Amino acid sequence: MSCSIARSLEEVGEWWTLLVVRDAFFGITRFEEFQERLGIARNVLATRLQTLVEAGVLDRRCYDEARGRYDYVLTDKGKALWPVLVTIRQWGDQWVVGQGREAIAMVHTGCGEPTTGVLTCDRCGERLKPRDVRVLAGPGLDDPDLLPRSARPAPGPG
Amino acid sequence: MSCSIARSLEEVGEWWTLLVVRDAFFGITRFEEFQERLGIARNVLATRLQTLVEAGVLDRRCYDEARGRYDYVLTDKGKALWPVLVTIRQWGDQWVVGQGREAIAMVHTGCGEPTTGVLTCDRCGERLKPRDVRVLAGPGLDDPDLLPRSARPAPGPG
Repeated sequence: MSCSIARSLEEVGEWWTLLVVRDAFFGITRFEEFQERLGIARNVLATRLQTLVEAGVLDRRCYDEARGRYDYVLTDKGKALWPVLVTIRQWGDQWVVGQGREAIAMVHTGCGEPTTGVLTCDRCGERLKPRDVRVLAGPGLDDPDLLPRSARPAPGPG
Repeated sequence: MSCSIARSLEEVGEWWTLLVVRDAFFGITRFEEFQERLGIARNVLATRLQTLVEAGVLDRRCYDEARGRYDYVLTDKGKALWPVLVTIRQWGDQWVVGQGREAIAMVHTGCGEPTTGVLTCDRCGERLKPRDVRVLAGPGLDDPDLLPRSARPAPGPG
């Protein structure tokens, strides 16, 4: 599939995988701590961490050679998942957990205010909404049927 | 779990689920079309659609009572997933598929330029980056250990 949503989900769409990434953003680096926080079986966690290392999302660094202990830290590819985590948390706060029951809040240190991240256009700075964008075929499109109907070439006359 | 990332993933973290939502944004509404685009077994798709209807992400509307046919359309809760899809697609374009191989591109009709959505602070409009935000306990936090160490109350002296 050329769709990068589909291909991204193959790497990070599995439930526990994104929670491991969440905890890595919270500063967790060690197997025992991930295990305690996530409450999953050790062999399952070991597989998840290995998957994330192979995908280049986490880097495995030895911190105790004698005991064969490792830290797991976010790579640049892993750090780039931050907007995904923020948008999914905000969606959950609003639509699943509900306002007033959020587990965490973010403060923007730049302005000192509680903040919600909003998607804006990197060119003009306006907020982006689905109705304000048009989807076009990209260079890697191998199946034109992937596109919404409105973005496909118009059929010829007749 | 009070974490809304975890609770969101229970609703939409499963691989096919978000692809169904992607196609719904592309204007797909009918079972046969989802099935053709996603190439999954009919019983699997039926279960996924049912899950999304139960979660309130899709609404099921009868369009042919005689034949018992339905349209599946995004609810407001479903439409609110748009920033999640955009951020995960953009991550995949950059880190999985690679620049120059994107399947689709977005044009912002407001400014007419190809656009990448960036997360900005809803208060001051500055771009948000992980190092620019501080995480605090929210009203619904039932487990202080969920927070990153830096955000937990400092231990007392001694």
